[in-house]
Amino acid sequence: MSFLIKRMTVIGVGLMGGSMALGLRERDLVGEIIGVDRRSALDAALELGVIDHAHTQAEEGVKGSSLVVVATPVSAIAPTVKSIAAHLEPDALVIDMGSVKGSIVKQCEAWMPDGVNFVGSHPIAGREHSGVRAAYGDLFDGSRTILTPSDSVSSAAVERAKQIWEAVGSSVEIMDAQYHDRVLAATSHLPHLMAYNVVNTLSDLEDDIRAEVFRYAASGFRDFTRIASSDPVMWRDICIENRDAILDILDRFKNDLEKLSKRVAEGDMDGLYGIFARSRATRARVLEENKILRGE
Amino acid sequence: MSFLIKRMTVIGVGLMGGSMALGLRERDLVGEIIGVDRRSALDAALELGVIDHAHTQAEEGVKGSSLVVVATPVSAIAPTVKSIAAHLEPDALVIDMGSVKGSIVKQCEAWMPDGVNFVGSHPIAGREHSGVRAAYGDLFDGSRTILTPSDSVSSAAVERAKQIWEAVGSSVEIMDAQYHDRVLAATSHLPHLMAYNVVNTLSDLEDDIRAEVFRYAASGFRDFTRIASSDPVMWRDICIENRDAILDILDRFKNDLEKLSKRVAEGDMDGLYGIFARSRATRARVLEENKILRGE
Repeated sequence: MSFLIKRMTVIGVGLMGGSMALGLRERDLVGEIIGVDRRSALDAALELGVIDHAHTQAEEGVKGSSLVVVATPVSAIAPTVKSIAAHLEPDALVIDMGSVKGSIVKQCEAWMPDGVNFVGSHPIAGREHSGVRAAYGDLFDGSRTILTPSDSVSSAAVERAKQIWEAVGSSVEIMDAQYHDRVLAATSHLPHLMAYNVVNTLSDLEDDIRAEVFRYAASGFRDFTRIASSDPVMWRDICIENRDAILDILDRFKNDLEKLSKRVAEGDMDGLYGIFARSRATRARVLEENKILRGE
Repeated sequence: MSFLIKRMTVIGVGLMGGSMALGLRERDLVGEIIGVDRRSALDAALELGVIDHAHTQAEEGVKGSSLVVVATPVSAIAPTVKSIAAHLEPDALVIDMGSVKGSIVKQCEAWMPDGVNFVGSHPIAGREHSGVRAAYGDLFDGSRTILTPSDSVSSAAVERAKQIWEAVGSSVEIMDAQYHDRVLAATSHLPHLMAYNVVNTLSDLEDDIRAEVFRYAASGFRDFTRIASSDPVMWRDICIENRDAILDILDRFKNDLEKLSKRVAEGDMDGLYGIFARSRATRARVLEENKILRGE
């Protein structure tokens, strides 16, 4: 039998890495799968049949693999890629799954030996749970993945990365890495940080009113703050890695917030109506255009 | 047949007022229902059987009614109550449905003639649609309603207001009006305003990145901004009427936002982790306690 990928290595066998392994395996696209992680995660992945072999050392685990999937937390991507660079096969392709791309991609591309390529990848896939036990082969099915290679990456490598993501059901778009980070700062990082901030502001209220806040936290609060229940480590790392784009969008948000506060303080009825009406219209338009773009 | 309420008047026959009328009627608790609104709304309410008689003048419409339900937008409650005060029956009870209470309740209570009582009411009921055609008799079933009478309101009147809300299926709590406004500023007004502000910040991005923001507005954005699609007039009025409590919570939010921005700017990993971990823990605790309180 001839596989698309004879042998691959997944570094970080959690929900995302495990789902990529399962997705390729279930579609008969991969021969052997090597997992690299802590011992406990590897044992679970072996038991579940997500991987065939296990290594705790990435340098060892990447030997003989034509595809290396770096599915670690964002902050570990660059150090991991640096440590494996000298041990990669001559024609290997390395992809990651980080939600921030700019500096990571720049560093990782530079560390690649001749003939080896790193193609930065960000799969936009939902994840309520984490860990390899939550992994499943269709996680990426119907998702979108943004690839952010610089011009120095070979087009054959980009094409191969695209082929892999499409094989597990994702539609692929190519975007500049810095631009990706600005877009994500606006659409994802800003809403998450503001949800976190609202919850923290409520936590700080004096004890008497906080008790009532707890009682009256209704469905609006639940919806609004759902995204404030994501993994704190992931959000810490995103803030570190995407600092500049996040600080820029936070500044814009703060300017708008000052205008809103001023209008509340002045009792400016027309100004307040304008803010709310514009926002409602924008949201409706965004969702409508998004629906059309998704072909719904 | 002996009714709990022989004759009642609903001023503002929209979703909320119409649902109160239907809720009492369907439970055989009311004899005659008079509606006061613009002509077009009255025609629809008559056609749907929500009201029996129609008036465009509130002063006329309240004659002979032992219960008057003021279901106008928040900004119209106080002017409406002022205009009807001299025309109310000697033993009438007036309730409103506004989501802000402090100054409205204070004014309206003061305008009541001897023997007549105003009991400020805030039903916390979901409403995705508006208008009398969306009204239904079980809108308040399972909801919570906060009553905010001052000490000067007779306990018999408070008891009667409680009886009416419970009759349509709501559970009733009594709260100080100013305190109510602080709690709602935190649990409802702050999240709404921040959702509006996020959407407005995204609207202002340069054209190139805004196009991508539209495309990548995923489910997180949808959830987070759902509450930014509410009625702009209602939110304008809430900002005007609950100005002080809103400015106070906005100040707290801005202070927390400054701390968060500072930690992002400084790349303070421990500080960022602390913010996100605390927020996630708080949210989980709030929802858990809320579940227990609701008996879920």
